[in-house]
Amino acid sequence: MTEWIGKATTVKEPLTVFNRLESEVRSYCRSFETVFVKGSNALLQDRNEKEYIDFFAGAGALNYGHNNPQIRSKLIDYLLEDGITHSLDMATDAKEAFLLRFQETILEPRGLDYKVMFPGPTGTNSVESAFKIARKVTGRTNIVCFTNAFHGMSLGSLSATGNAFKRGGAGVQLSGTTFLPYDGYLGPLVDTTALLEKLLQDPGSGLDTPAAVIVETLQGEGGLSAASGKWLRSLERICREHGILLIIDDVQMGCGRTGTFFSFESTGITPDIVCLSKSIGGYGLPMALTLIKPEHDLWQPGEHNGTFRGNNLAFVAASAALRYWEDDSLAGQIRDRSEIIADFLRRMASRYSDRIAESRGKGMIQGLAFHKPEDASRLCKLMFERGVIMETSGPRDEVAKLMPPLTIEDSLLKKGLQLLEAALSDLYEGISPRAALQAKG
Amino acid sequence: MTEWIGKATTVKEPLTVFNRLESEVRSYCRSFETVFVKGSNALLQDRNEKEYIDFFAGAGALNYGHNNPQIRSKLIDYLLEDGITHSLDMATDAKEAFLLRFQETILEPRGLDYKVMFPGPTGTNSVESAFKIARKVTGRTNIVCFTNAFHGMSLGSLSATGNAFKRGGAGVQLSGTTFLPYDGYLGPLVDTTALLEKLLQDPGSGLDTPAAVIVETLQGEGGLSAASGKWLRSLERICREHGILLIIDDVQMGCGRTGTFFSFESTGITPDIVCLSKSIGGYGLPMALTLIKPEHDLWQPGEHNGTFRGNNLAFVAASAALRYWEDDSLAGQIRDRSEIIADFLRRMASRYSDRIAESRGKGMIQGLAFHKPEDASRLCKLMFERGVIMETSGPRDEVAKLMPPLTIEDSLLKKGLQLLEAALSDLYEGISPRAALQAKG
Amino acid sequence: MTEWIGKATTVKEPLTVFNRLESEVRSYCRSFETVFVKGSNALLQDRNEKEYIDFFAGAGALNYGHNNPQIRSKLIDYLLEDGITHSLDMATDAKEAFLLRFQETILEPRGLDYKVMFPGPTGTNSVESAFKIARKVTGRTNIVCFTNAFHGMSLGSLSATGNAFKRGGAGVQLSGTTFLPYDGYLGPLVDTTALLEKLLQDPGSGLDTPAAVIVETLQGEGGLSAASGKWLRSLERICREHGILLIIDDVQMGCGRTGTFFSFESTGITPDIVCLSKSIGGYGLPMALTLIKPEHDLWQPGEHNGTFRGNNLAFVAASAALRYWEDDSLAGQIRDRSEIIADFLRRMASRYSDRIAESRGKGMIQGLAFHKPEDASRLCKLMFERGVIMETSGPRDEVAKLMPPLTIEDSLLKKGLQLLEAALSDLYEGISPRAALQAKG
Amino acid sequence: MTEWIGKATTVKEPLTVFNRLESEVRSYCRSFETVFVKGSNALLQDRNEKEYIDFFAGAGALNYGHNNPQIRSKLIDYLLEDGITHSLDMATDAKEAFLLRFQETILEPRGLDYKVMFPGPTGTNSVESAFKIARKVTGRTNIVCFTNAFHGMSLGSLSATGNAFKRGGAGVQLSGTTFLPYDGYLGPLVDTTALLEKLLQDPGSGLDTPAAVIVETLQGEGGLSAASGKWLRSLERICREHGILLIIDDVQMGCGRTGTFFSFESTGITPDIVCLSKSIGGYGLPMALTLIKPEHDLWQPGEHNGTFRGNNLAFVAASAALRYWEDDSLAGQIRDRSEIIADFLRRMASRYSDRIAESRGKGMIQGLAFHKPEDASRLCKLMFERGVIMETSGPRDEVAKLMPPLTIEDSLLKKGLQLLEAALSDLYEGISPRAALQAKG
Repeated sequence: MTEWIGKATTVKEPLTVFNRLESEVRSYCRSFETVFVKGSNALLQDRNEKEYIDFFAGAGALNYGHNNPQIRSKLIDYLLEDGITHSLDMATDAKEAFLLRFQETILEPRGLDYKVMFPGPTGTNSVESAFKIARKVTGRTNIVCFTNAFHGMSLGSLSATGNAFKRGGAGVQLSGTTFLPYDGYLGPLVDTTALLEKLLQDPGSGLDTPAAVIVETLQGEGGLSAASGKWLRSLERICREHGILLIIDDVQMGCGRTGTFFSFESTGITPDIVCLSKSIGGYGLPMALTLIKPEHDLWQPGEHNGTFRGNNLAFVAASAALRYWEDDSLAGQIRDRSEIIADFLRRMASRYSDRIAESRGKGMIQGLAFHKPEDASRLCKLMFERGVIMETSGPRDEVAKLMPPLTIEDSLLKKGLQLLEAALSDLYEGISPRAALQAKG
Repeated sequence: MTEWIGKATTVKEPLTVFNRLESEVRSYCRSFETVFVKGSNALLQDRNEKEYIDFFAGAGALNYGHNNPQIRSKLIDYLLEDGITHSLDMATDAKEAFLLRFQETILEPRGLDYKVMFPGPTGTNSVESAFKIARKVTGRTNIVCFTNAFHGMSLGSLSATGNAFKRGGAGVQLSGTTFLPYDGYLGPLVDTTALLEKLLQDPGSGLDTPAAVIVETLQGEGGLSAASGKWLRSLERICREHGILLIIDDVQMGCGRTGTFFSFESTGITPDIVCLSKSIGGYGLPMALTLIKPEHDLWQPGEHNGTFRGNNLAFVAASAALRYWEDDSLAGQIRDRSEIIADFLRRMASRYSDRIAESRGKGMIQGLAFHKPEDASRLCKLMFERGVIMETSGPRDEVAKLMPPLTIEDSLLKKGLQLLEAALSDLYEGISPRAALQAKG
Repeated sequence: MTEWIGKATTVKEPLTVFNRLESEVRSYCRSFETVFVKGSNALLQDRNEKEYIDFFAGAGALNYGHNNPQIRSKLIDYLLEDGITHSLDMATDAKEAFLLRFQETILEPRGLDYKVMFPGPTGTNSVESAFKIARKVTGRTNIVCFTNAFHGMSLGSLSATGNAFKRGGAGVQLSGTTFLPYDGYLGPLVDTTALLEKLLQDPGSGLDTPAAVIVETLQGEGGLSAASGKWLRSLERICREHGILLIIDDVQMGCGRTGTFFSFESTGITPDIVCLSKSIGGYGLPMALTLIKPEHDLWQPGEHNGTFRGNNLAFVAASAALRYWEDDSLAGQIRDRSEIIADFLRRMASRYSDRIAESRGKGMIQGLAFHKPEDASRLCKLMFERGVIMETSGPRDEVAKLMPPLTIEDSLLKKGLQLLEAALSDLYEGISPRAALQAKG
Repeated sequence: MTEWIGKATTVKEPLTVFNRLESEVRSYCRSFETVFVKGSNALLQDRNEKEYIDFFAGAGALNYGHNNPQIRSKLIDYLLEDGITHSLDMATDAKEAFLLRFQETILEPRGLDYKVMFPGPTGTNSVESAFKIARKVTGRTNIVCFTNAFHGMSLGSLSATGNAFKRGGAGVQLSGTTFLPYDGYLGPLVDTTALLEKLLQDPGSGLDTPAAVIVETLQGEGGLSAASGKWLRSLERICREHGILLIIDDVQMGCGRTGTFFSFESTGITPDIVCLSKSIGGYGLPMALTLIKPEHDLWQPGEHNGTFRGNNLAFVAASAALRYWEDDSLAGQIRDRSEIIADFLRRMASRYSDRIAESRGKGMIQGLAFHKPEDASRLCKLMFERGVIMETSGPRDEVAKLMPPLTIEDSLLKKGLQLLEAALSDLYEGISPRAALQAKG
């Protein structure tokens, strides 16, 4: 790690090529205005050899860090031995190995019985496939989703995504879904599953009995609101009683992000369908799974498909990444790091209680919700200048979010948190950046 | 190439693991019932060391063959030097290099001016993004598409896909599209663009003036029907006159499949939007582009996004693959191989004119349309037994399709065609497979 | 009034012709199994000369009673003088007279400024036209409606109707609407407009900002739940702040049913659009109005139309009926009768508090909500046998509803209530019908 | 008949009240700018005692003329004897009488077996109910309809209406229908049912197999194009073969307009569902029927309903009007008058062949299609000035349409035609109106 991290510099990187050739739709490159060239676990390096601590982790696609060496060596071996790279859904040994590893390392120890579907290699494709099979199994069309949910950007999954700006991009009416208030949306005293239950029981409610309910256990894009175990169990009970399939969208919260492989493990619920993507590919490689209870696996062959559902490099990387789950060591590390982050954020929230509404999240996706939404963006901008990649979250971008690789070195995590403390201090107490850093460092 | 190719063997591969753990939705592994382990250009090898000539090429995702060594070496270098693998849409040098290479090698020489959008890394995501921007630009919602079109499996693109079985999988009404007859659908004498024009000009036709027309220049899934240049030019003229965007879905037909990089180059049309995927990633790696005329690039930042739109390994592979287009040698080879295939298929169609309706397609996607649809499946099954991977196409799977890697060695191409000739002979003339092979070999 | 009213008789009326020739969709004739032949104010007579007190009033279409003589004489005069019966939307003197009368008698005295639209002559056509103009004015598509709302049976209005059985009849997905909880739906302590406001203010809520909110001030089909003035004013304020049009569906509650001509008069709100039908035609004749604030009257000529929007007999009857609103006498009578009904129902609810949840409604649409829904049907059935026409309401048909003509004679009203008291007594105390009647009578 | 008919006068009628109080949506009153006060068979009289020959007949709602005395006397009797006016769908003797009369006079003699449904009293409600039952019976959602169809203005029926202006009024995407070319749309040599059949047989066509096909035998709003018997029989055969219900929308063409009671009688087809409205009420009174083959009458009670489905005055008038069909005299008169009209129009079309494309239509709905659409409007405007009510039709209003009451006196018919001849002469030959009239008269 070079010495510049934490030094406030104004990076002047014109991104000329991108501005000239890439569509206006590009976004993160506008917040992080530099050209990155290398990555190693939780460190990124740009063209000017400036390094950055990665508290973003590919929006959850890099839980095992950049260029994880154990995974990389498997990839290179596979490439060199002429392993199949692309196979549609033909059988390959890389896919077979992944299926077995996933079964033995993940499903069996957790007592879970799912058939594994490989939809197209993105989260939105997994959600699209989940909606299709739920509608087929139940013969119904409606899907219940929740305020501030994010499930994807293709037409089916976008219908279940709450964000008005992203919905507006559709250019057509989005239909086939009903939004209900997420846990806590009406305040801590209101159990919003009671509203769902009342609407389902009332034949005049206007709620078309849904094929499925889709929910994130913690809303990564929606501002780090978390559903309680009690709320999720209530949701599961209601679904069972009305023959509704329960879909957990674990695209961002799965693969250990909240502390366990699946985010719902501690709650005792057993979803009918689970959507996985992002870090399942292990190395940032595109891959997605849709896990379906065997009794609901009523697909006809090829009824949903996609060219890249057989991305074998991702199978190889995924199998290597699953090694992390063969014992409890990673889980233990996540627990320890989560506590470090939680303690730190609580301290900050307490220190700046007039500016910070609360600390939120769990496991290694936590953040600070600000009273004034723009403070979150200001903080992230300042952090980037000082060498930390962080993003905002929430309907008004009012949450500054920390989601480093699960494998981040403790020293780097602490360094990042120190920089965050200094940045908050500078934002709110007017101390110069350098002085702040020196005071802490 | 081992000696067994062409020898009829009955492979007994139980696929136990797949049958037990993978969803019923799996399909190609049912047709090609073995476990593949290696690939090299146009050759595949299974677990039993049996080799197969690949006349399928990942449904068009492997135009440059399996494990293309020039591309692979770039990938391994990039991996070893800690290159960024996953970057969302942050700027990386791999992405910059691709943008420049694509601009210099593909767009500029063809006089094309497009902004490059990176949607999620699959064809369906590209189509979804194309529909969104077309609807935004025009303020209209309808999309005109064509009989037997295939544009993808997520809800938006599926609405423009003709196949009833795949449409039925949606479980909801598909809306926002109008199907019109493709070129030749009403016989060779009817110009079906005239129907489109009449409907557009008639304020009582019931056709809601569309935001866009989306069309494949040759229908890869729809039975290898091709649109003539005249028809496409007429379509373009009508679009222009009514302020309708013309979208070419070049997901399967692009990247040289039909003889030129874009399938529409020879026609003189300039689409407003082009969808690319499959072989753009070069090595079978998931990647997709949406090319948008600058005047239509009205996206807000992040209005469409996706986790894997920054799959940098694909950018590296894509840049390497574009080397093939720096001169005319690949194009020349495709032309030569296309003629070999075309001559061969015409000969077969003529020889078995009572069984084969016609040969179809162009470039390196050609096939035989059978009077009895089941003949196509029987042929492909027999070819697989003899070591050639081929698939059917068309609404009734009535076409046996040849789409080898563009880079297939001539000897292997000819070997494959010989096996095809023998298989047809055996199917229709009752000669034993071995005898047939010996006779030809 | 003949003597038989109140005598329990079992009418055996086979309805042979109807059973043989009319569609299975027929419904009320199954509850009221006789053939009616005459009507006079609040009395009906069947083929067997049995008389019935009409506590149903054509579901609100007969507020001025059957064959109101003042109205009838105008109709007969008009018929005899060759007045125009049917005029599409050409100008006629009957229409002109109605427009002037409506302006002078209804709108001006209430300080209301609306343009009058004549959609097709039914409530559902009025609602369809209201949705169209609201969508046109705002450029938005969504409509917010409420649990247990009833707005009609054609596809547009059915989308805003809560009843699952009726929605199911559509045979297609209903879209373009969002249901939110009506006043009181979450208990007396929860102001459900706060939920609407929160969803509108939250850019991640998934609620597409609506073109309009449509609401009944009292839900005639939905179980006689009433919205408070405070709730309606809050709704109006929220609509104003978000540029949302407020539509009051006064199809059943208008024309004096709740005590004032418009049901919302006492609340202080001024809807952007008001839907009127049922009793506006005065004599049970099909007619409907859509009242639109002048600034929202952005229709192009003929953008919504219908063959029977010029039902001149209804204009003549409507003009005659509006005479009732030239002074306060009818309003006073409604007030008096409402109190009689309210006092009676409260007494019954108190007496049978273990069976009756509460009395509901206001003005001359009130009823009893039963703990066991089937009690409401049993009561109505018994009342019919004894010569009173009453219907159930509510999502589970759990409310027995009283809605006599506003003009019902006091003696007949009281007679009906006595019969109701006796019927309840018989249902719950086991006294024989005849004994009960004699005891009361 | 007063002397002024045919005299060109410029009526200055300000319509002040209508302009001030009625919505901008009003339309016909802008074309026929006067206030009508009386009607008698085919004559209208305005406030200035100017008379008009009615060649419009309430857009087909006044087939038996204005104030038909035989019908009126029945209405007045019924009113005076306290007959039930409004009955929802309770049984009344007026309804029973209508059912029996309709069965005996219409269905039985034609060998037709239909259950009679009373939807709301307008054509659009009938179409909405037809779509619902077809979707329920088949479990499918799509409805095939045809270019230039008009089926109504509520959301369901509007989806099957071709006119772009009217469709645009919906403010939402219209879905659930597929438009195909009507008979003759692709020229006289193309049988467009072949396209339907091809699309249905092709599993890749994108045409979702429909629940129903809805068609007008002659397109009253769509420009008087007529479907041939052969085409309709082909349509029926295709529907039968694919289990699709055939709906004939006879709202405007039924009740004798084309020469027989149902417009399809001469073709030999037997629709599964028939929609009737407009003149079924006999006197211009709102009424509609949906006729359903008994095997498709799978409604649950009340699954479709409406307040005014029991408009008893219309039942009384309808029963009286059906007397016209007890023998062949009316049919004979229609035949004779149709020939007069047809001969006349053919003569005009021939005389002004450079201006008039052709004469169209059949029975007593015929017209002239002009090369320049504005000529049709100019003609109708001139005719109105001279005392004849005529309207345009067609997607560009290019057809001037004649549809007098079926009962028009021959002398008045001829007078109207003379005025038409004079008007054409004046338009195209520059002769002064008066001179023209005198020349002819």
